[in-house]
Amino acid sequence: MAKKPSKSNVLTYAPQKPPGPGEKPGQPASGVPRQDDAHVMALALPPAQLSPAMEAYFKKCEEKLGFVPNVLLAYAFDNAKLEAFAAFYNDLMLAPSGLSKLEREMIAVVVSSQNRCYYCLTAHGAAVRTYSGDPVLGELMVMNYRAARLTKKQRAMLDFAVKMTNESWAIEEEDRDALRRVGFSDRDIFDIAAVAGFFNMSNRVASATDMRPNAVYHGQGR
Amino acid sequence: MAKKPSKSNVLTYAPQKPPGPGEKPGQPASGVPRQDDAHVMALALPPAQLSPAMEAYFKKCEEKLGFVPNVLLAYAFDNAKLEAFAAFYNDLMLAPSGLSKLEREMIAVVVSSQNRCYYCLTAHGAAVRTYSGDPVLGELMVMNYRAARLTKKQRAMLDFAVKMTNESWAIEEEDRDALRRVGFSDRDIFDIAAVAGFFNMSNRVASATDMRPNAVYHGQGR
Amino acid sequence: MAKKPSKSNVLTYAPQKPPGPGEKPGQPASGVPRQDDAHVMALALPPAQLSPAMEAYFKKCEEKLGFVPNVLLAYAFDNAKLEAFAAFYNDLMLAPSGLSKLEREMIAVVVSSQNRCYYCLTAHGAAVRTYSGDPVLGELMVMNYRAARLTKKQRAMLDFAVKMTNESWAIEEEDRDALRRVGFSDRDIFDIAAVAGFFNMSNRVASATDMRPNAVYHGQGR
Amino acid sequence: MAKKPSKSNVLTYAPQKPPGPGEKPGQPASGVPRQDDAHVMALALPPAQLSPAMEAYFKKCEEKLGFVPNVLLAYAFDNAKLEAFAAFYNDLMLAPSGLSKLEREMIAVVVSSQNRCYYCLTAHGAAVRTYSGDPVLGELMVMNYRAARLTKKQRAMLDFAVKMTNESWAIEEEDRDALRRVGFSDRDIFDIAAVAGFFNMSNRVASATDMRPNAVYHGQGR
Amino acid sequence: MAKKPSKSNVLTYAPQKPPGPGEKPGQPASGVPRQDDAHVMALALPPAQLSPAMEAYFKKCEEKLGFVPNVLLAYAFDNAKLEAFAAFYNDLMLAPSGLSKLEREMIAVVVSSQNRCYYCLTAHGAAVRTYSGDPVLGELMVMNYRAARLTKKQRAMLDFAVKMTNESWAIEEEDRDALRRVGFSDRDIFDIAAVAGFFNMSNRVASATDMRPNAVYHGQGR
Amino acid sequence: MAKKPSKSNVLTYAPQKPPGPGEKPGQPASGVPRQDDAHVMALALPPAQLSPAMEAYFKKCEEKLGFVPNVLLAYAFDNAKLEAFAAFYNDLMLAPSGLSKLEREMIAVVVSSQNRCYYCLTAHGAAVRTYSGDPVLGELMVMNYRAARLTKKQRAMLDFAVKMTNESWAIEEEDRDALRRVGFSDRDIFDIAAVAGFFNMSNRVASATDMRPNAVYHGQGR
Repeated sequence: MAKKPSKSNVLTYAPQKPPGPGEKPGQPASGVPRQDDAHVMALALPPAQLSPAMEAYFKKCEEKLGFVPNVLLAYAFDNAKLEAFAAFYNDLMLAPSGLSKLEREMIAVVVSSQNRCYYCLTAHGAAVRTYSGDPVLGELMVMNYRAARLTKKQRAMLDFAVKMTNESWAIEEEDRDALRRVGFSDRDIFDIAAVAGFFNMSNRVASATDMRPNAVYHGQGR
Repeated sequence: MAKKPSKSNVLTYAPQKPPGPGEKPGQPASGVPRQDDAHVMALALPPAQLSPAMEAYFKKCEEKLGFVPNVLLAYAFDNAKLEAFAAFYNDLMLAPSGLSKLEREMIAVVVSSQNRCYYCLTAHGAAVRTYSGDPVLGELMVMNYRAARLTKKQRAMLDFAVKMTNESWAIEEEDRDALRRVGFSDRDIFDIAAVAGFFNMSNRVASATDMRPNAVYHGQGR
Repeated sequence: MAKKPSKSNVLTYAPQKPPGPGEKPGQPASGVPRQDDAHVMALALPPAQLSPAMEAYFKKCEEKLGFVPNVLLAYAFDNAKLEAFAAFYNDLMLAPSGLSKLEREMIAVVVSSQNRCYYCLTAHGAAVRTYSGDPVLGELMVMNYRAARLTKKQRAMLDFAVKMTNESWAIEEEDRDALRRVGFSDRDIFDIAAVAGFFNMSNRVASATDMRPNAVYHGQGR
Repeated sequence: MAKKPSKSNVLTYAPQKPPGPGEKPGQPASGVPRQDDAHVMALALPPAQLSPAMEAYFKKCEEKLGFVPNVLLAYAFDNAKLEAFAAFYNDLMLAPSGLSKLEREMIAVVVSSQNRCYYCLTAHGAAVRTYSGDPVLGELMVMNYRAARLTKKQRAMLDFAVKMTNESWAIEEEDRDALRRVGFSDRDIFDIAAVAGFFNMSNRVASATDMRPNAVYHGQGR
Repeated sequence: MAKKPSKSNVLTYAPQKPPGPGEKPGQPASGVPRQDDAHVMALALPPAQLSPAMEAYFKKCEEKLGFVPNVLLAYAFDNAKLEAFAAFYNDLMLAPSGLSKLEREMIAVVVSSQNRCYYCLTAHGAAVRTYSGDPVLGELMVMNYRAARLTKKQRAMLDFAVKMTNESWAIEEEDRDALRRVGFSDRDIFDIAAVAGFFNMSNRVASATDMRPNAVYHGQGR
Repeated sequence: MAKKPSKSNVLTYAPQKPPGPGEKPGQPASGVPRQDDAHVMALALPPAQLSPAMEAYFKKCEEKLGFVPNVLLAYAFDNAKLEAFAAFYNDLMLAPSGLSKLEREMIAVVVSSQNRCYYCLTAHGAAVRTYSGDPVLGELMVMNYRAARLTKKQRAMLDFAVKMTNESWAIEEEDRDALRRVGFSDRDIFDIAAVAGFFNMSNRVASATDMRPNAVYHGQGR
């Protein structure tokens, strides 16, 4: 059914840009309502008092990225949940691993494509474009990773992530052996599973709450 | 399985840019092969002698768009097929209709998203961005149209196109009535069906032949 | 839900036979409403003035087939659409090709079986029976092509058409190579893709508009 | 993959017609192997000594139908199994019930269409044509029952049978209430469930053993 | 939607235990309604006069099992149906076969797991635990047979049963050959097909009628 | 394919019980290999040096539960990952919430049933049995939650979790409103989404690594 305007999340950090000179609010010339991301999510949850650690973390985001990612604002109604999420996420995507940061982002986008998650495709599609320096690679991960030119090893990694996403119950030793054969260690396999698993969580939480990506992601790495 | 480099289609009009000063061919710094679209499709079909009408059409494409869309080059191995395809396509997408050109492109992208067609998502995603002047709308049609802010009428139109794509056998009078209730005429319904049907053909031909979009689409309308 | 009688299409050429002496209109002895195809489709679209070329084409249909196929009547509300459709269709199914006309009709029926399209199964099932002289082959294409006795080459052709229909996004070079291995040229592959693609369009337009086959098809080639 | 010729079942009652004057064995003019049903199924199971009751039953089939249905020959390797199957089947399809024999056959065909069972679509499609006196109704049950003109009650009956076939785990009290609302008693609901359930068994046994229908079915009721 | 309390089946043999001293009817401490199986099924069908043979059969059930399985009570509204069902079932699961009784029960549970049938998972899960003496094996058949330690032969048997359940139309000679290769005879293949087919019927009848398992099954073989 | 014995995980805390007097290792009388869970998972990852906090946590598990859950041993190859996982999990399942611990476990099992995850069905099925004091409720959550007697509110909660699991991309404001209508607050909706999301991660990591549940779970709460 047609989308009702979602409830404002009071945590909206980024103030909404007022309509510019030639811009009318509401229905624009094209007849399609303007897409904006002024809301963080569809649930109305008042912001919690953040711990000094989390306040510092948000400040660091603003300094380094220019903004606090909306997923963090979405969790900020409860400081304990925010801390647990941030710790889990940062270990997963940034800690040392046999997988490069780009490879972890590629898994993130390919899983999010299977689950058609607007938030994660936008935010992590930007990351693939930025880490790889190749905007087309980001598009391919969003649209159909099978059409991309990949190394055999990258392809096996993404095939495993997609099988985990679509029929995890059918994964067996031969699937793990297919990863070992192209050179992944058992530790690498754990990391592939952990990243693919995580975005199967994150995609669903984002869709369940209608989480909206920060507008700035759309232009990154183009 | 990992993608083998596809066979060159001899019709490749746009000559491949040689690697620039700092660019190495092959595996770039990121470890992911560079994505290019130097090939039109994976089938090796020599170009036919084009009729004067088709030569003029290609020339007009180059003047107005700056390039000949690869889908036309793909059909150019047989002048009769090219003419039939071009006539059918141009009537469908450009002839007078109760649906605006933007709306027809929105259907094109939403259908192509269901079928995960790299060629059509790229070419028609660019058209949505350009016609609407809203790059985010293009992204939403590619990623998940249900997350977009749409009028009730646009939403009903896209829901019908998606049902046609995923379970056409289950469409019944109540589905047509749902379109009538939001204001579509029987002629409009035919046009929605015709556009949604066409991209269910075009997506499949593109995937079956590994048709590659012209690189220029990626940046249009950003 | 139960089927409402569809709106009459004003283009109905074949006048409905009045009930015969022993026939009651409405509910017959079996308790099931009689199935007729007096309507062309569920959309009420007034017929356009046809061009002389199209008038001649319809006359030729009546002379050669004894009737104008309802799919042509369905498009006849707009002469330009009818011409584009007829040209596209005739090139596809009748122009010279490495695929015989029977093989193209076999693809048509197998694709239509996946999409459960009543119009196309009826019209093209008749064509398979007629071209092959084997009524059972027509039934097998409608019911389950995997149960038919086929050459390896025909089976590969139909498997490709079914994969295009059900998961076109997963077609890769190895699928095309499977066709090459059994003896298809790249041109043949294009033709298989074009026919399978076309019926994925045509099935959906027919279902979306509740297009009804001419009654005469049911008995052809038995 | 292409079909291997199935193993002969030694129970083949109907002796294979030798090729007629103008008929060549093997590849006919159309290039497609001739479809025959000289075999009962793909499993080689020697016939058992039948009990007098079963011998009489087979004789009665030949007298009334002109042939013994292949499904009975398929079970004839074990007299106890044949007796149990025949008793179960005959009670189900022929015993007094709130459902007419035609309605039970309509359920049989619609379920078999979901499961794409060549044997059951052929044998029970013939029964629908014969019981209803309407060949088109038989085709519609095979191709897409949603395109048929049905009473609301028949449509509800078939929708329940299809839901039982495709997602039986999701049937709940509201589904049974939908049947009660259009006039079915609880006993009728049991009979609908029993027939729909039975063909979900029979379709699968037929497909698992490549059971082939008697050729005579194809022409019945046309 | 939330479950309405099902209608009482008048055949309920096992009288419902009245609430004990500390037990309140209705909502217990946990906030979840207590799950009971005081009803046989959701259809209200009065019991028929049973034949002496069926009365003796029910008595034997009570002596050997301590209860009459609810599936038999469900069919007891019609003596002929009960007799046909019991004869068919007993031949299938208890007659001599190359498959052990445990193996037939393993197929029963694995098929029922695909169809998520509460009745059959409960009753036949108990049988697997009891026949094997291994409660964990019963759990694995219910939850995901692919996670069980099985012989190659047992795994092939269950894979065939699952393919029959989920896409019977795709079974071909190569699937039967896979069973032959691990040592199954053609007769064994028939028996595998018959058991897998039967539970595809029985699961659906149980779900369509909301058949409830006797409570005693839950504790058997733990 | 048949299961290869998985590689031993060196972290196996619970020493494997040697075969008892009457027990033979290997193939038991039933012909089915004995199911054991002597291994934690199929990846060979050496245990890390645990931090004092994690050592204390494991000790507490052994005191309170009698064992360390295998999922914790699976993460123990890396102390940082173990800490992040434990913190995230404990906040999710044990922190104050509008959902009771039993309700969170019901979501866990119902999601795990959709994903057929042996580890999570076993461990969290035990938790449902224990928290509710009703072993049948645990079985119903594993087998088919739609067959359970639930309050309208619980049913809505589980339906949302299942939709998140199977088609998260289709969740819209009307789905959230359905939860609000039965009495859930926006904070409750977040918690439902968070638990359902988490088990969509955890199920997949468990299946991807063949994580095996501690044997003791099977008997808990019976």
